[in-house]
Amino acid sequence: MKRKLIAISTVVALTAITATVVQAQFAKPDAAIKYRKSALTVMGTHFARIGAVVKGEVPFNKEEVAKNAAIVNTMASLPWQGFGPGTEGGDALPSVWSESAKFHSNSEKLQAATAALNTAAQSGDLEAVKKAFGATGQACKACHDDFRKKS
Amino acid sequence: MKRKLIAISTVVALTAITATVVQAQFAKPDAAIKYRKSALTVMGTHFARIGAVVKGEVPFNKEEVAKNAAIVNTMASLPWQGFGPGTEGGDALPSVWSESAKFHSNSEKLQAATAALNTAAQSGDLEAVKKAFGATGQACKACHDDFRKKS
Repeated sequence: MKRKLIAISTVVALTAITATVVQAQFAKPDAAIKYRKSALTVMGTHFARIGAVVKGEVPFNKEEVAKNAAIVNTMASLPWQGFGPGTEGGDALPSVWSESAKFHSNSEKLQAATAALNTAAQSGDLEAVKKAFGATGQACKACHDDFRKKS
Repeated sequence: MKRKLIAISTVVALTAITATVVQAQFAKPDAAIKYRKSALTVMGTHFARIGAVVKGEVPFNKEEVAKNAAIVNTMASLPWQGFGPGTEGGDALPSVWSESAKFHSNSEKLQAATAALNTAAQSGDLEAVKKAFGATGQACKACHDDFRKKS
């Protein structure tokens, strides 16, 4: 019983710390929502540009693909800080907070996928880019399926 | 007269090329507006975090400042592609397009300032960060004064 109470206290304390950090990073929940949407928009835009090359709609220019992949990879680490406690809303489903471990794991899978995409893009190997693009798209989709409102 | 006509034709042709590039990068003007706002939001968020350190509201953590400055510097190159022909609107004043040379020059000044801020931040020298932060803030303001709707 005592152990359980300590465990609960620890969770409460950690939640309070996280909430303070979020508060320090974003003045209001709306700012956090705007930030995470913005980071996802920038990531999605540059990811879609690689997609156009992968689909053959745009000719392969390795410098352009490398530039876009580097931006995608940088952006992939950012949105998650905008999903702190008390920032429910926007396009996010309540599951972001009720299944936070799964959400966190999904965000890490995405970052691993964008890192691999970036490595492939910097190598200039289109076939490797195509493969890594597909894997990254799957990581986007997995998270959208479970954690994003359907439009 | 003939020379003038050639000059006009060249401008028309270049505008058409630029418009095509913008069209290729953004499916619709709204997407360009959303993109540039998003890039500016992400840049502004991380710039403000450095600002909190500069103002003494948050203790100086050089790894955090370096991380924020790197993001600011990456973001500083992005918004401008979202201001192509036919993307008037949002928070942008018509002067973005009627005084495009000045707007472009301002965007280059900002990028030089964020590069210097990034260099200062990576060095871990708080005094250098403060100076470079001030110069970057001036570059933001110069552009907002002339090219952004007053809220």
